[in-house]
Amino acid sequence: MKKVLTSRNTDYSQWYNDLVINADLAEYSAVRGCMVIKPYGYAIWEKMQSVLDKMFKDTGHSNAYFPLFIPKSFFSREAAHVEGFAKECAVVTHYRLKNDEESGEIVVDNNAKLEEELIIRPTSETIIWHSYKNWIHSYRDLPILVNQWANVVRWEMRTRLFLRTAEFLWQEGHTAHETKEEAIEETIKMINVYADFAEKWMAIPVIKGVKTESERFAGAIDTYAIEALMQDGKALQSGTSHFLGQNFAKAFDVKYTTREGTLEYVWATSWGVSTRLMGALIMAHSDDNGLILPPLLAPVQAVIVPIYKGKEQLDKISETAIRIKNILKEKGISVKYDDRDTHKPGFKFAEYELKGVPVRLAVGPRDADNNTVEVARRDTLEKKIYPQENIDMVVSDLLEEIQLNIYNKALDFRKNNSHDVDSYEEFKNILNSKGGFIYAHWDGTAETEQKIKEETKATIRCIPLSNKHEKGKCIITGKPSEQRALFAKAY
Amino acid sequence: MKKVLTSRNTDYSQWYNDLVINADLAEYSAVRGCMVIKPYGYAIWEKMQSVLDKMFKDTGHSNAYFPLFIPKSFFSREAAHVEGFAKECAVVTHYRLKNDEESGEIVVDNNAKLEEELIIRPTSETIIWHSYKNWIHSYRDLPILVNQWANVVRWEMRTRLFLRTAEFLWQEGHTAHETKEEAIEETIKMINVYADFAEKWMAIPVIKGVKTESERFAGAIDTYAIEALMQDGKALQSGTSHFLGQNFAKAFDVKYTTREGTLEYVWATSWGVSTRLMGALIMAHSDDNGLILPPLLAPVQAVIVPIYKGKEQLDKISETAIRIKNILKEKGISVKYDDRDTHKPGFKFAEYELKGVPVRLAVGPRDADNNTVEVARRDTLEKKIYPQENIDMVVSDLLEEIQLNIYNKALDFRKNNSHDVDSYEEFKNILNSKGGFIYAHWDGTAETEQKIKEETKATIRCIPLSNKHEKGKCIITGKPSEQRALFAKAY
Repeated sequence: MKKVLTSRNTDYSQWYNDLVINADLAEYSAVRGCMVIKPYGYAIWEKMQSVLDKMFKDTGHSNAYFPLFIPKSFFSREAAHVEGFAKECAVVTHYRLKNDEESGEIVVDNNAKLEEELIIRPTSETIIWHSYKNWIHSYRDLPILVNQWANVVRWEMRTRLFLRTAEFLWQEGHTAHETKEEAIEETIKMINVYADFAEKWMAIPVIKGVKTESERFAGAIDTYAIEALMQDGKALQSGTSHFLGQNFAKAFDVKYTTREGTLEYVWATSWGVSTRLMGALIMAHSDDNGLILPPLLAPVQAVIVPIYKGKEQLDKISETAIRIKNILKEKGISVKYDDRDTHKPGFKFAEYELKGVPVRLAVGPRDADNNTVEVARRDTLEKKIYPQENIDMVVSDLLEEIQLNIYNKALDFRKNNSHDVDSYEEFKNILNSKGGFIYAHWDGTAETEQKIKEETKATIRCIPLSNKHEKGKCIITGKPSEQRALFAKAY
Repeated sequence: MKKVLTSRNTDYSQWYNDLVINADLAEYSAVRGCMVIKPYGYAIWEKMQSVLDKMFKDTGHSNAYFPLFIPKSFFSREAAHVEGFAKECAVVTHYRLKNDEESGEIVVDNNAKLEEELIIRPTSETIIWHSYKNWIHSYRDLPILVNQWANVVRWEMRTRLFLRTAEFLWQEGHTAHETKEEAIEETIKMINVYADFAEKWMAIPVIKGVKTESERFAGAIDTYAIEALMQDGKALQSGTSHFLGQNFAKAFDVKYTTREGTLEYVWATSWGVSTRLMGALIMAHSDDNGLILPPLLAPVQAVIVPIYKGKEQLDKISETAIRIKNILKEKGISVKYDDRDTHKPGFKFAEYELKGVPVRLAVGPRDADNNTVEVARRDTLEKKIYPQENIDMVVSDLLEEIQLNIYNKALDFRKNNSHDVDSYEEFKNILNSKGGFIYAHWDGTAETEQKIKEETKATIRCIPLSNKHEKGKCIITGKPSEQRALFAKAY
């Protein structure tokens, strides 16, 4: 198997596309901007889903399902929301096709025009709060802690597999609370869940922070986000959690009887992560040979490849290989024995490197004789011979080590590519040379933020929650500032 | 809690609606024909999904995801398919909204009309086979064994919660094979998976059979189905598996190089079950007090309710209750302790009956003193006092017994409501009095089938696979017949 990927140095963007396609993760479909998530890509997404779903349930949430369609008028109810979401979207106008008598083609039946157009949900606040009005009467009905796994559609003009597609898969949590404090607590709880997931499972260090007004979710009072740094020095927003105040309760007239007997509007949050996380996972760790997957999310954690000539040798080696496979399986490791005789070992090695299988074991005739096995780790590409005895401990330790190592590598990369800058000159220099995270003082105005964005394409990713407060001067206007904002070019 | 359900005898259809709404399973949404699946209903669906998903994976299938949208022209490629599916459907014609300067309303932007309309998938054969063309080149690429969990839309005019909704959730398997035999084997394997699931997990006995031409999936050579009998004597088709022959391979030009080096069209199957199964589950077992859930699919298998006066008694009882809860949890039983002080025990009892929790434990002051507990089973409503010792075994055995009992009850009901009939007179008499499954000889023509349907509303549900072959005469035409067809009125 020859090298199939453009190198990262040559063209990072092309490397990413090559990798997604060649590792069989996803491909474009017949419909503009919509992707097909292929079985290997979907298996990774399923692992992510299952971990996240458990984290949501452990924090008291239940799943539910709301309609794909949203009546057009619903968007107009919340002023900021309509601006943000009711623009580039898929609009259903008719509900029937018919055979055209003249052409023999099937055409839209103009007699089947909807009275009110339906929008394919770009996000579900409106349709969900329309339901919540019937669910919530008293404080006894609160909190409502609901999540939905669903597909959504935003008619993006420029699309990239996983990172920005017209249709994508996601989860959206929608909660309703008695008090402002409780809703804010929920908002922060969920951004912490996302950060834990990113760091512990995806092995990606993230910065938690608050968005500025211009980057806020349309309809939110505050948007919290986690931001990750990719290998090309660009930021990728990997999850958001919104404190919605009473905006949607007011838009859909959702009031509850308080413990004191008064009527109040309900407080809300929403939070989501999407198949975009797949893009982050792919870009954060992988190299010019292919995918590098964190062992905790790899569909196949270890693969065993036999090295042999002829059936007799294969039979002997298979005996050893299958024994090892069973030992690893017993240990809870997801393992595959690849005894296909249609492909040479070198081809298989390259294929599993491309697909990011964390640990590869090779068993040759000498290994079968000597009770040894060659173990290669995907992250460093190091190989080492081990005795077969205790091979389960070896692989299991190695998986843990790889998980930790790729996290630390990503953390080191971020450290080396994070800069406190105190002048606009320095800001532009760093941004144009290597990119990365830039921490700089900002006067807090949308004007300055906009100017920087227009001149450099960098945006304020967030005001980090972990910021130490330090007095300084805005790099543009020189006005006083209390803390640094995190700037970067972003996906 | 007062009785909230219409009785089955009074109005079975109203009973069903009352039950779905009052047990918090689902409700209608703001969008015509689309439902909201509420957390309790969704929790049952999730359990069903997770069991089915494991069954699919155990039989070698992987999940993937294909676009929600299908270009209109795709439907025209397969002649029978377009007739069946490209009619009542949701049609996307535009991709942008805008503010109307005059009215201030948001309106469809006529400058954003799609060149080709997109149909929200009613089923995905066409878009998937369009992809398969790129996936399949040689016999080495076969079989492809892929499943997708997704939402689909069919613009039904008359809708009922779970049973028939415009949008519903389902899974659709789409496989590709080298040979006809292998594809037929897969088709039958999957109808067997569905039958096993229905019988072992849902506790619903089903008849496996083949559909007649008029009831076949649009585009299939053969459709296999499982048919279940509901308490009102009507059949509910609960899963289908289609042998598609080479129809879609030809429509999308999917050929492969055989082992002999020739080029052949690929053989296909597709198979699916949907949230309709929820309707079957609800109708098959439940009674006038509410839902009866098979323990294997109940989100909460056992609930503990304290009977107390005042905080001191509650504290003492809670100690016992929590100990029992932990013992049951340890045993792998999904258990909830309901110590809400806002509701009386009687209210809670009725609520858990309504929601179909299989086993209810009540702990009163005397139980706490005597180390006893009152155990009630939902299926028979029997109550019995047990010692607290070994309560885990008692509950675990009871759950098994309930699972078996409701299956046997449904099986007895079906036996008592299945009839071999040999004249049209008898056919109509039974159909109009008690309904049920009617086995009758039929001459095999579409005309006779149509006549019976028009005159009685009964359709041929299937030709059962387990049929014994016996010569007879068609109840309408008197022409010779080799076996009986299964007739019933159906959902």
